[in-house]
Amino acid sequence: MARWEAGADARLAKAAIELYLERGFEQVTVAEIAGRAGLTKRTFFRYFSDKREVLFAGSAAFQDAVVSAVIDAPDDVTPIDAVAAALAAGGAELTQLGEPVRRRQHLIAASTDLQEREMIKLAALTAAVADALRQRGLPDTAATLTAQAGIAVFTTAFERWSNQDEPADFPALLRGALSDLRTAISGQ
Amino acid sequence: MARWEAGADARLAKAAIELYLERGFEQVTVAEIAGRAGLTKRTFFRYFSDKREVLFAGSAAFQDAVVSAVIDAPDDVTPIDAVAAALAAGGAELTQLGEPVRRRQHLIAASTDLQEREMIKLAALTAAVADALRQRGLPDTAATLTAQAGIAVFTTAFERWSNQDEPADFPALLRGALSDLRTAISGQ
Repeated sequence: MARWEAGADARLAKAAIELYLERGFEQVTVAEIAGRAGLTKRTFFRYFSDKREVLFAGSAAFQDAVVSAVIDAPDDVTPIDAVAAALAAGGAELTQLGEPVRRRQHLIAASTDLQEREMIKLAALTAAVADALRQRGLPDTAATLTAQAGIAVFTTAFERWSNQDEPADFPALLRGALSDLRTAISGQ
Repeated sequence: MARWEAGADARLAKAAIELYLERGFEQVTVAEIAGRAGLTKRTFFRYFSDKREVLFAGSAAFQDAVVSAVIDAPDDVTPIDAVAAALAAGGAELTQLGEPVRRRQHLIAASTDLQEREMIKLAALTAAVADALRQRGLPDTAATLTAQAGIAVFTTAFERWSNQDEPADFPALLRGALSDLRTAISGQ
């Protein structure tokens, strides 16, 4: 997509990732990000509360897609399978973007500040998935535990994907991680 | 223990919890906490980086105890059982303190700021438990997934405990939560 066709938020996110990779997250200012995107600081703050948030531009849309998929899963699908399928589909879409997503992941891994922000996003996602499961009639604790297990499996699969050079099938990575979690807690 | 025998950090923590319960976490200043404890702001900041941290005074000691218990578990104990036993012992000690711990938990549940801080402490605990499992020879991903499962089970058990009026056996609550997690992810 040509630069002038993209929305300001996407341009800011692209500029931020470029600058963070060039000079490190800590060293880059909001003014520099806005400048690289050909926009003003004021525009930056209309979209993002701070320079961490710009790396999580897509997280609300991702969460909405996962929650909808959990709610819309057929009634005869078990809760963990509904969550796994929703996260597999979301992760497949995300990982199809390829190298930029991998680079973003490495940026986050290199900064405690960014890891904290990601943790907060993942906690919100976990809570939203648990709510979706309650809407499907799952009792409170089972919903929370299922959501937590789903997110643990998702982050494991995602980390495996971002450390691989070869393109990999995200749903297969997620199924592998779920199988690993079952083995890990079986106590065998 | 008489007030003048207690350490300054314990006095500050006690004063903070009292004030947070009386007036709400947001409304209380560090100067007021120090004043209630008969100490200065400067002393407060020798022990705690901010007014959130004072509620997590015991978290380093808790983490050390859990990590040691995982490392020292007999070789023939499975990883998830080593983690569950370590967290059951830590949780049993914590919950024996009774009402103050329950009140602290309700304070945290009422504040997004405090929930974020707790999330960061739990992430650090998860990483430390995963490291301890790697020291026992568990492969990387299995260590992370087992630690994540253990912490999910611990927080479930702890939430059940803090919402019960009756004294409850924490290790039994933790075993119940582990059994619930196994059921949740079995896909049955």
